[in-house]
Amino acid sequence: MTFSANAVVTLTTDFGTADGYVGAMKGVLHSRFAGARVVDLTHEVPAHDVVSGAFALATAAPFFPDGTVHVAVVDPGVGGTRRAVVATTPNFHFVGPDNGILSLAAPVAVVRLLQNVPGVPRAVSPTFHGRDLFAPAAAYLASGGDPTTVGPETQGLLPLSLPAADRGEGFARGTIVHVDRFGNLVTSIRRADVPADPDLQVLVGGVALPTIRRLVQYYAEAEPDAACALIGSTGFLEIAVREGSAHGRLGMGRGAEVVVRRRSR
Amino acid sequence: MTFSANAVVTLTTDFGTADGYVGAMKGVLHSRFAGARVVDLTHEVPAHDVVSGAFALATAAPFFPDGTVHVAVVDPGVGGTRRAVVATTPNFHFVGPDNGILSLAAPVAVVRLLQNVPGVPRAVSPTFHGRDLFAPAAAYLASGGDPTTVGPETQGLLPLSLPAADRGEGFARGTIVHVDRFGNLVTSIRRADVPADPDLQVLVGGVALPTIRRLVQYYAEAEPDAACALIGSTGFLEIAVREGSAHGRLGMGRGAEVVVRRRSR
Amino acid sequence: MTFSANAVVTLTTDFGTADGYVGAMKGVLHSRFAGARVVDLTHEVPAHDVVSGAFALATAAPFFPDGTVHVAVVDPGVGGTRRAVVATTPNFHFVGPDNGILSLAAPVAVVRLLQNVPGVPRAVSPTFHGRDLFAPAAAYLASGGDPTTVGPETQGLLPLSLPAADRGEGFARGTIVHVDRFGNLVTSIRRADVPADPDLQVLVGGVALPTIRRLVQYYAEAEPDAACALIGSTGFLEIAVREGSAHGRLGMGRGAEVVVRRRSR
Repeated sequence: MTFSANAVVTLTTDFGTADGYVGAMKGVLHSRFAGARVVDLTHEVPAHDVVSGAFALATAAPFFPDGTVHVAVVDPGVGGTRRAVVATTPNFHFVGPDNGILSLAAPVAVVRLLQNVPGVPRAVSPTFHGRDLFAPAAAYLASGGDPTTVGPETQGLLPLSLPAADRGEGFARGTIVHVDRFGNLVTSIRRADVPADPDLQVLVGGVALPTIRRLVQYYAEAEPDAACALIGSTGFLEIAVREGSAHGRLGMGRGAEVVVRRRSR
Repeated sequence: MTFSANAVVTLTTDFGTADGYVGAMKGVLHSRFAGARVVDLTHEVPAHDVVSGAFALATAAPFFPDGTVHVAVVDPGVGGTRRAVVATTPNFHFVGPDNGILSLAAPVAVVRLLQNVPGVPRAVSPTFHGRDLFAPAAAYLASGGDPTTVGPETQGLLPLSLPAADRGEGFARGTIVHVDRFGNLVTSIRRADVPADPDLQVLVGGVALPTIRRLVQYYAEAEPDAACALIGSTGFLEIAVREGSAHGRLGMGRGAEVVVRRRSR
Repeated sequence: MTFSANAVVTLTTDFGTADGYVGAMKGVLHSRFAGARVVDLTHEVPAHDVVSGAFALATAAPFFPDGTVHVAVVDPGVGGTRRAVVATTPNFHFVGPDNGILSLAAPVAVVRLLQNVPGVPRAVSPTFHGRDLFAPAAAYLASGGDPTTVGPETQGLLPLSLPAADRGEGFARGTIVHVDRFGNLVTSIRRADVPADPDLQVLVGGVALPTIRRLVQYYAEAEPDAACALIGSTGFLEIAVREGSAHGRLGMGRGAEVVVRRRSR
């Protein structure tokens, strides 16, 4: 570990805010560490959607200062056999369930079980680990607590269960893994997978998009109302419609197949 | 009053955030007290829904450190005859309208009318007490202001208008008072009301749920996709579906009758 | 410029929070300025809706303390030819695209192009100026950075494209520009435009509302379930239904014509 705690604790959950559950977590953080600087990343992860949560966390976490504690709770298996962990990378602590939610943001990490968090009885509330286990652990770490005391080191994080992308000579194939607020279709195809060719074709759900012949650099470079393709700010291929919704226009959403290939000549 | 102010001000409203109303309240708090540490509990209480707001506040407020000022504004009667108050408990100040919104979180409190808040003219904006009265009062109290100066002490808070739960030999009856983000059905039946019997039956809207024969301790203890019953983190009986929505599955929502009883033998 | 920086940075976007984009901006702010006090105004501006964003910002911004930096990113033209600017008023810095989003809140301002923000390369990410340009600029200014160094002074802000209101002898005519969370219909008619007459008539979409004969001062002064008219907290004429939704009741929304006139006698 090469960083010092900086008192910043970020929260990523699927709790929404209407119920007071997030508020209870914030109360615990402020009660256990008066200097805590609590930052909402999102509480609008779709309920039980570990993939979307992992994506949101990985989008935001890297931009925080060293020493930040990132708490992520999307936890359909709460109370079951999944492990509660802290994953420590060279820059951050990540606190949450070991169900894949932390894996995109912390691909390489020292992982410890949360078994001896100060002030937390062994038998914690069976339905609300966010408030009774993860928030206390985060308060402890954000205030400079020693991660080696919270529990034994253990094997690495479970990988996130994501559809694979594959690539071959002149093509790459993946799926839509995320539909964002603007209806942009984020795929599992990374920048390096896209064929290096000036004349490209993109198919979504098996249908070629005639307005796409290359990647654009800017949304504004695309024709209004026409589908375009670009590498988004997180490094994945996205299908978008300038000032519109690709999701609405194409009628395609999460799970649809996306192919980008050299145009036949 | 046994606590000292700690500069934390929480906000619970039904304003949503799209309109800038919440932002205006935050601006007033920061303007009047530079050291304010403003914490969003929720702004997604359904519009004018005092019961949901009271539930959210009571879920979160107890976890905050002593001295926190909790502001709650769900206020369909703004500008009418309802009183504007600060309710002081042994741990917290609660600021808002006296319409029940504060009553679950502050069941026993010293209540004062907000009549002489420093810097607030007697005739405040008729449509936005959140910004012009409650936020200034909260800033004053969070900075260590004396609550006895804001107005005369008065009778206790109006109780929240909640459907009653009742209990008898081997049964308890209540209603669904809240449907949370995950479709869990929160009832008005408290832990102590549930018959102490190893073989229970639960009826929602008059229909027995065949998959429930006892309370589970953990969501993960329940069968996937089957209704289960448990005491939720706030101490009320909840009907849930593991990794699913009881609301969607059962087609039952707020106001439906819930009975938990000893199974006939 | 007559104010000193106060470390408060407010955020107004149409990003929602589900995707991690807002979180990334917050990370940049905290990374570049450890003392930043980041305040969410709203991230729920409808996607690409510059008018709603401008309205929300203008509703909230004036209530913040002098020296606050307000960042607003509703930016359908990102990557195109629109300018990225800081607009400095006697009280605040406003940072964002020059597309009208800042114009209601900063009607008179010294405007500078964001060309030399410390630590920002000239060629920034084409799709995410919020994270890569506006957040660094805000961190710089909130920490007391000199606005004259970020780029050359330039002409004033583009005005917001709003439907005009007009007035004549005994009448004013405007349109609904905003429908708020509660279904209140906010019009473009300002307080001073309303005829000073005790007997008024209001028409929405050409239809007279029979329950309105004057402006009320308080929602609670109106009959329950009947349409009423009042000057809202931002100074514009609003049509409302007490404890209900004028939007739902009247079936009228943004763009509908509103006339307020002296009743024929």
